[in-house]
Amino acid sequence: MTRPIPGERTGRRPGPSTTRAEILAAARANFAELGYDGTSVRGIAARAGVDPALVHRFYGRKDDILVAAVSVAMSPSDRIPELMEGKPSGLGERVVRYFLSVWEEPQRREVLIAMLRSAATNERAAELLREFVRREVVDRVTASLRHEHAELRATLVGSQLVGLAMARYVVRVEPLASATPETVVAAVAPTLQRYLTGRLALPGSG
Amino acid sequence: MTRPIPGERTGRRPGPSTTRAEILAAARANFAELGYDGTSVRGIAARAGVDPALVHRFYGRKDDILVAAVSVAMSPSDRIPELMEGKPSGLGERVVRYFLSVWEEPQRREVLIAMLRSAATNERAAELLREFVRREVVDRVTASLRHEHAELRATLVGSQLVGLAMARYVVRVEPLASATPETVVAAVAPTLQRYLTGRLALPGSG
Repeated sequence: MTRPIPGERTGRRPGPSTTRAEILAAARANFAELGYDGTSVRGIAARAGVDPALVHRFYGRKDDILVAAVSVAMSPSDRIPELMEGKPSGLGERVVRYFLSVWEEPQRREVLIAMLRSAATNERAAELLREFVRREVVDRVTASLRHEHAELRATLVGSQLVGLAMARYVVRVEPLASATPETVVAAVAPTLQRYLTGRLALPGSG
Repeated sequence: MTRPIPGERTGRRPGPSTTRAEILAAARANFAELGYDGTSVRGIAARAGVDPALVHRFYGRKDDILVAAVSVAMSPSDRIPELMEGKPSGLGERVVRYFLSVWEEPQRREVLIAMLRSAATNERAAELLREFVRREVVDRVTASLRHEHAELRATLVGSQLVGLAMARYVVRVEPLASATPETVVAAVAPTLQRYLTGRLALPGSG
């Protein structure tokens, strides 16, 4: 795909899928640079070199664009069912490898940091992230996890992963920030494995 | 302690320790309401009803005030050595109970959320948090932890705890947000215990 220069007239109009991708790339950049509050449909349209109405038609409101950008970066609808299918004893490791594969890639990391920042500072964005996590992550995990407390288990996994993202990629606390991906896998996979399939020994549940 | 009304003349000047506490309470409120970027020494002074020079004299710059407020909320210099002293097998549980005791208290939670928000969105605040975690948490833990990879262990604990704070108190993902403290302790203590004293099986370390 060629990247049209905004405002430049080329011989043909870019196809809808190119334009969709352009809009998403512009959204990703604006959320990363300007944060949730500083990003607008108008600003995204300007950066992508398209009419704001087109952005609205493809993605709806600013909120919907952020969720779409996070969805594209994480592809939970493809990846989570895939992760859940393999051997149950390797689930924790598969989950942390998937998470690192997303976060170690700079463009994806950028939009995920934007989502985290937005959720940390804006109630509407926190609600969006909450809803995204419930629909795209918790529901998918609980649909295939044959263990009691499946929802709590999914959110415990989420708590470790969001904390890993904060410590390693946002605040960058050493030595965790510079640890190799294999070190992180070795350290964190057993945590996720226990949260997903292990004994939680919750009060009142024997 | 009586709370002087800003601008009101009382018969006597409040003692220095009252004033220090007033300034810190004003700082906590401003950071929580206005965020890192919106908070200033002048604004804190106005809220506390004191001269900005006094705020500077007691605490230094805005950065230092935020760190002071977090230190007061978490008291790591008293609490961490205390936690490290008891039976090693109960360390994970003591750490998560300490963390919850801080976060379940609304005023402390407020300043800690302000710190997290600031660190997520402002590079200078992230640096401050990084430095605070290194000096107040990692160094204290590694000083008394008799296990290899002590620094990595301390930051892994930090990653789970910051993620717990984000998921439970900031984004409020259910059912983790409404789980009882005892449920959180049962779920998370074994994770922290393994990070602190268990086998990590890191690559290259046998």
